[in-house]
Amino acid sequence: MKRYALGLDYGTNSCRSLIVDLDDGTELASSVFPYPSGGMGICLDPREPNLARQNPQDYIDGFSSITAAIDQAKQIRSDFNPHEIVGIGVDTTGSTPIPVNREGTPLAMLPEFKDSLDAKAWLWKDHTSHTEAAEITELASTIRPKYLAKCGGTYSSEWFWSKLLHCRRVAPKVFTAAHSFVELCDYVPAVLAGKTRPEEIVRGVCAAGHKAMYNAQWGGLPDKEFLAKLDPELANLRDRLYSKAVPSDQQAGRLSQKWADKLGLKAGTAIAVGAFDAHMGGVGAGIKEGTLAKILGTSTCDMMVIQNNKPLTDIPGVCGIVDGSILPGYFGIEAGQSAVGDIFLWFVHHLVPNTYGRNVDTRFRKLGKMAAMQKPGEHGLLALDWNNGNRTILVDVRLSGLLLGQTLHTEAHEIYRALIEATAFGALTIIKRIEEYGVPVQEIVNCGGLAQKNKLLMQIYADVTGRPMKISSSDQTCALGAAIFGAVAAGKELSGYGTVGESQKVLCSTKKQYKPIAGNHEVYRQMYKLYRELHDAFGTASWSGKLNNVMKDLIALREKQRLLK
Amino acid sequence: MKRYALGLDYGTNSCRSLIVDLDDGTELASSVFPYPSGGMGICLDPREPNLARQNPQDYIDGFSSITAAIDQAKQIRSDFNPHEIVGIGVDTTGSTPIPVNREGTPLAMLPEFKDSLDAKAWLWKDHTSHTEAAEITELASTIRPKYLAKCGGTYSSEWFWSKLLHCRRVAPKVFTAAHSFVELCDYVPAVLAGKTRPEEIVRGVCAAGHKAMYNAQWGGLPDKEFLAKLDPELANLRDRLYSKAVPSDQQAGRLSQKWADKLGLKAGTAIAVGAFDAHMGGVGAGIKEGTLAKILGTSTCDMMVIQNNKPLTDIPGVCGIVDGSILPGYFGIEAGQSAVGDIFLWFVHHLVPNTYGRNVDTRFRKLGKMAAMQKPGEHGLLALDWNNGNRTILVDVRLSGLLLGQTLHTEAHEIYRALIEATAFGALTIIKRIEEYGVPVQEIVNCGGLAQKNKLLMQIYADVTGRPMKISSSDQTCALGAAIFGAVAAGKELSGYGTVGESQKVLCSTKKQYKPIAGNHEVYRQMYKLYRELHDAFGTASWSGKLNNVMKDLIALREKQRLLK
Repeated sequence: MKRYALGLDYGTNSCRSLIVDLDDGTELASSVFPYPSGGMGICLDPREPNLARQNPQDYIDGFSSITAAIDQAKQIRSDFNPHEIVGIGVDTTGSTPIPVNREGTPLAMLPEFKDSLDAKAWLWKDHTSHTEAAEITELASTIRPKYLAKCGGTYSSEWFWSKLLHCRRVAPKVFTAAHSFVELCDYVPAVLAGKTRPEEIVRGVCAAGHKAMYNAQWGGLPDKEFLAKLDPELANLRDRLYSKAVPSDQQAGRLSQKWADKLGLKAGTAIAVGAFDAHMGGVGAGIKEGTLAKILGTSTCDMMVIQNNKPLTDIPGVCGIVDGSILPGYFGIEAGQSAVGDIFLWFVHHLVPNTYGRNVDTRFRKLGKMAAMQKPGEHGLLALDWNNGNRTILVDVRLSGLLLGQTLHTEAHEIYRALIEATAFGALTIIKRIEEYGVPVQEIVNCGGLAQKNKLLMQIYADVTGRPMKISSSDQTCALGAAIFGAVAAGKELSGYGTVGESQKVLCSTKKQYKPIAGNHEVYRQMYKLYRELHDAFGTASWSGKLNNVMKDLIALREKQRLLK
Repeated sequence: MKRYALGLDYGTNSCRSLIVDLDDGTELASSVFPYPSGGMGICLDPREPNLARQNPQDYIDGFSSITAAIDQAKQIRSDFNPHEIVGIGVDTTGSTPIPVNREGTPLAMLPEFKDSLDAKAWLWKDHTSHTEAAEITELASTIRPKYLAKCGGTYSSEWFWSKLLHCRRVAPKVFTAAHSFVELCDYVPAVLAGKTRPEEIVRGVCAAGHKAMYNAQWGGLPDKEFLAKLDPELANLRDRLYSKAVPSDQQAGRLSQKWADKLGLKAGTAIAVGAFDAHMGGVGAGIKEGTLAKILGTSTCDMMVIQNNKPLTDIPGVCGIVDGSILPGYFGIEAGQSAVGDIFLWFVHHLVPNTYGRNVDTRFRKLGKMAAMQKPGEHGLLALDWNNGNRTILVDVRLSGLLLGQTLHTEAHEIYRALIEATAFGALTIIKRIEEYGVPVQEIVNCGGLAQKNKLLMQIYADVTGRPMKISSSDQTCALGAAIFGAVAAGKELSGYGTVGESQKVLCSTKKQYKPIAGNHEVYRQMYKLYRELHDAFGTASWSGKLNNVMKDLIALREKQRLLK
């Protein structure tokens, strides 16, 4: 009898179901469901560019991707039996908290809140809570510095408590009606298990530890005294949240009869505790000690692990260090860039003329082709990759993009290249910070759409960092990681795998690598110095340099590189 | 009998002939000839973005605009007789030196040099000579500080000696073959007068004083000792240039029989000494003491005059202060921005998607319409207007553009508005500098295509500067100014005007003004502070500030302005 696992991956604009053959890692079938609400699944407010919400109903409707994947699997293997799916894992974006009532029904699904943006899911990239984030950082640095130490020294507006506090302030009716708030990664498994009442939902340590200041060392969530200083209602809410959070090799529950019937799966199938897409993506990419797993998508997440019995200094500016958030028994280290693919999408949608093509795909192809013909530095441009703020290492959403060096001849493909380079410089800044704090990066495995599709980008990353960029064999490492946890949560007897490590050896590999070109790296070394000048000047309060060299150095570099042609 | 004057205006991409009725200033007929060579009249080198040359033959071919204007005038007034044109004036771009042989024939017209870019006219915006400009500045500041004092403290790569020295170095064959170099504004009158031998060409004090360090105080051009330190061949060349330069109320000569026959004009018609387009444009705009005349085109020139018997301090960073360069008897003060319209053209050609329209005109209309709907600061953007370097007050071509504040939602029309604002901040910086040195700006008259056509731009200029922006009645102030000098050079008996001032009273006026809106000015006052931080940080060596406030202040402003909607 065959054994399969199902991975559910809830991304920013769509969700995906992946069926994995546990004998050899074959990704048998995969189906995507784009969220129907808002624009590409995101509900916006034209008056508030920081706002990004989602309709929770879209998440339930996303289960149709499961049946679509099953149908596909049956066509590929006529003897495929969905009851051979032994475990289900779920990864999602986050922190994406959903206000729910006593029964666990999202408020947005209730008639009285159907038109309220604040009753919807607060998508990870919602930045409306920047004031609250600053307030939480301020308070924690004064009375609970330990809370901050594990999340890079600054609490982010993308995170759980900032969003809840902002909700309390701007939408008190929603806040009061909310019996609890549930992270999307905990909500989906709970729905499948038929256990949506807040007190019975199993909470994952990934979301809890990275976004909600949960730590077993200090007894779970932040204490009531601390929360009350932010708002007494937050302290009251604490009892209606959770006191324990667990890694994803544990079960969140077993598939309910209702959803088993609806989806054609076997009732009682193990459902792993949910975690964030990037963390499970790191697992699907084969993360182990020394490996930096980079998930390259609209934003990026950079993941590392280190055994939880080794000493580990807190790393300033790194989003979080949480025991068990990626692999059980290891500290999970999470860093990331707030926008990567999103910057390119913004550019191609808003600033690329039709001479590059009529649609987004043809434009990207032509931009990439023309940008690839340039030498590093030849365009004379330098950009900061902060269009969506800076997550690591500055942890500051109130930063913005910058482009410098344009002349009267600068063309769109040159800017495209400069934007790619900016994200590469951002990636290098993260690597340097992690290594500075004693965690060596011995291998870099890239996954996600950009890593798979964008050769120019990966070569530039290799050239900028001076390190080989390996590409994960799987196109769907997040969903694969989720499937791996589904298998492990099902137990060795059913799935064949007792630990994540065992399963990674069979199911994960890399297929390709981009090697750095020495001459390019040398030019990028010079450009990175200039990038760091801008980075520190605009991003830090401690900077005390000069900037009048930046434009001239770039022009000199441009001239030198053009002469080489 | 009617009396007319003919103004010839040689711009960057085309030349224009304007026939003016001297009785009332009616602009009877006007015709444009686009230069056929290169791209829009400019010969480029794909390997050297600083290079911009022109084909001298285009200037001669441009005389066809005279006959076209005459034909037009005849259609409008059936009794129009081209022999009633009593004077001809010429303005051109500059410094645009042309290497010529002993007979005054441009080397580019000789077979042996027909393919040499270096034998062509070196267009004002050619920036290949930046190394030489720095060298000249360095030498002058050491041994002849007085040379620099009259041109803002820094000698520019756009100017005469930088270009000649660069030519000597990169194209020694061209330099050796050149018997002399003639400014375009001196060359065109000489051709019409049939006096092209270098020693008989009458040289204008405008080009000589602003671009070639000519000053009667020190005996004309820079001395041989100085030139020899740059290159002995420059010192040798000095004798083949000129020792005297005069204002444009003087005659450069009288129309030759050959050109009178070809063009249908009267032989012997007075031809005024040539000057730069901006300077004559200032005259056409009605410049007088206290008036700032702004010529807004691809770049801008800002002109003021002050009686030459008044004390005047040298103004650092202002392109030049030259006796008689604008009005006889007055110091002409010239400042300017290296790119204004050029920045918008660059943007609309290279970075505006077709959703704004299929061609440049429709795109500009839609960009303008959408940008006009925004409040100041609402886009959260800030730009530096340095895509073509900074002429005033930094006098530095090795600067480049900068755009800051972009998010994932920033749209093209928002950037368009930010670019307009950047040029307005640049304009304000010039006004502040001139006033700091004791020359009050009591009135601002704008002319040129942008002033006539771009209402959004003029309103933003009023709002940014907090001063009314008057618009010249004439659409063609440069050609009108040239015609005025043609009339004055012809003498009172023939033209009715003995001085420029007399003629301006009849021929020049303003038709409209944009008044500053107080609320907008207040926001721009805040934004200008941030602009100056960037300006000083990237543009000066003396700056010692911080920049980490800039992005956050802009975001705060953006939020405030959006709330007002």
